[in-house]
Amino acid sequence: MMNLFRTFRVGISGPPGVGKSTFIEALGTFLCQKDFRVAVLAVDPSSARTGGSILGDVTRMDELTKHKNAFVRGSPSRGTLGGVTRSTTDAIALCETFGYNVILVETVGVGQSETMVEGMTDVFLLLSPPAGGDELQGIKKGIMELVDIIVVNKADGELLPIAKRAAADYKAALHFGTPKNPLWVPQVRICSARTKDNVAEVWKTMNQYWEQMEKEGVMESKRKSQRKAWMWRMVQEELVKRFERNPRVQSTLIEVQREVEEGRLTAGLAADLLMDSFGASQ
Amino acid sequence: MMNLFRTFRVGISGPPGVGKSTFIEALGTFLCQKDFRVAVLAVDPSSARTGGSILGDVTRMDELTKHKNAFVRGSPSRGTLGGVTRSTTDAIALCETFGYNVILVETVGVGQSETMVEGMTDVFLLLSPPAGGDELQGIKKGIMELVDIIVVNKADGELLPIAKRAAADYKAALHFGTPKNPLWVPQVRICSARTKDNVAEVWKTMNQYWEQMEKEGVMESKRKSQRKAWMWRMVQEELVKRFERNPRVQSTLIEVQREVEEGRLTAGLAADLLMDSFGASQ
Repeated sequence: MMNLFRTFRVGISGPPGVGKSTFIEALGTFLCQKDFRVAVLAVDPSSARTGGSILGDVTRMDELTKHKNAFVRGSPSRGTLGGVTRSTTDAIALCETFGYNVILVETVGVGQSETMVEGMTDVFLLLSPPAGGDELQGIKKGIMELVDIIVVNKADGELLPIAKRAAADYKAALHFGTPKNPLWVPQVRICSARTKDNVAEVWKTMNQYWEQMEKEGVMESKRKSQRKAWMWRMVQEELVKRFERNPRVQSTLIEVQREVEEGRLTAGLAADLLMDSFGASQ
Repeated sequence: MMNLFRTFRVGISGPPGVGKSTFIEALGTFLCQKDFRVAVLAVDPSSARTGGSILGDVTRMDELTKHKNAFVRGSPSRGTLGGVTRSTTDAIALCETFGYNVILVETVGVGQSETMVEGMTDVFLLLSPPAGGDELQGIKKGIMELVDIIVVNKADGELLPIAKRAAADYKAALHFGTPKNPLWVPQVRICSARTKDNVAEVWKTMNQYWEQMEKEGVMESKRKSQRKAWMWRMVQEELVKRFERNPRVQSTLIEVQREVEEGRLTAGLAADLLMDSFGASQ
């Protein structure tokens, strides 16, 4: 059982309108009442491009925001994807240093943000609407290979049978592909964040995941390799930035790129030419 | 309709034992008889690590290898993934220069090879065994988001009803996720490469894809952006190689990496330290 002396990093994603804020508020409040200290971070790489803020979204969590055990904030960063990554990984570390032990990292699901959040958390939850068939196309491609737990939300009233069918569809779809984690079969649950039905059940499933990973001793090794991977991704991004800023590269690039696009130069030769102009200026 | 004056790059993947060689031989021979000139290239990035060869596999295509319109060979490269990529993109270009107009690029499905082959071809086929449920786990995770056409092979005799059910399962599974290509709904077909049943039907579907892309004028623009993307990927790989070879980086790396793994240094600060030691030596 996850306890107050450890930390648990939870990635949460889902399409717009699925009720992410309501779910996070319900789960977060439930955990605060159990004396966990809960931090909610929202990641929005799109703000890097649009300059937009998502604080409006997270401040909708009135009840949770007011709880003494909770800390709720939007993405602390503008700037490049690297900037968002860095400030988010740093924010997770800071929250843990300050004693928060359940870190809920929400992503609005733009671009590569799910992969990013999955790569910095212990467990990855997908929130799904109670829907079937074509409507499930709203679920982003490739996300099925990232999930550890799928939660079909809004499973109350008239939508309950539809939610149950969606859950069955997910279970069938999860049969495709080799498992992401050989120690864990992705689980599907239904809940209603609004009525709070089965929110405790979702937490129980998250705990089963936690216990399984702890039992196998892979929780800490996963975090180690995550940190190492981020270090290398940041190095790579910085190297490309330096390359693009190089004046000789810039003057070669326009023509080389056009020749490659037109098929008069292979990609490999073009890369050689660019590396030559970069090397010559060092 | 794809004609003799154009080229068509076809990526083909599938799990071991699905009958890739038999399928490629059946499709290739069918096309040679229609006066297409067919080149078969096999990509095996694992040979970069194991030093193994896959020529044994492609030379099993006896009938096709002997046809005057066909050119069959294994992966021309050992070395890094970058090396395999480069030699494969170059080989595709060379085959087209020498008049081959259908280029079948087979991948043995190790590591990132499907993503790589999908990124250098016009259409991507997944060959599947006639199976259901748990057996479909043999299909690699993430591949569903790459496919344009799924072909369930071995659809003959007793396996025919099983193949039909697998095809229905795939159709259902394709409902998940936003489409890769807004102009094309991935299609599912059954065929038997051994008896040659429905091989013509598979080619017809490939042609429908071709016509749709041509009609929308996106075939050439897709190739342009593929070439550009490869150029950048090769630049990136070369930059990281130079970085790793740098003596100052090498002397800093061991300690920095350990500190990051142990969580005493954040990934961002570690990247800064490494970039500093790289920069100082330039």
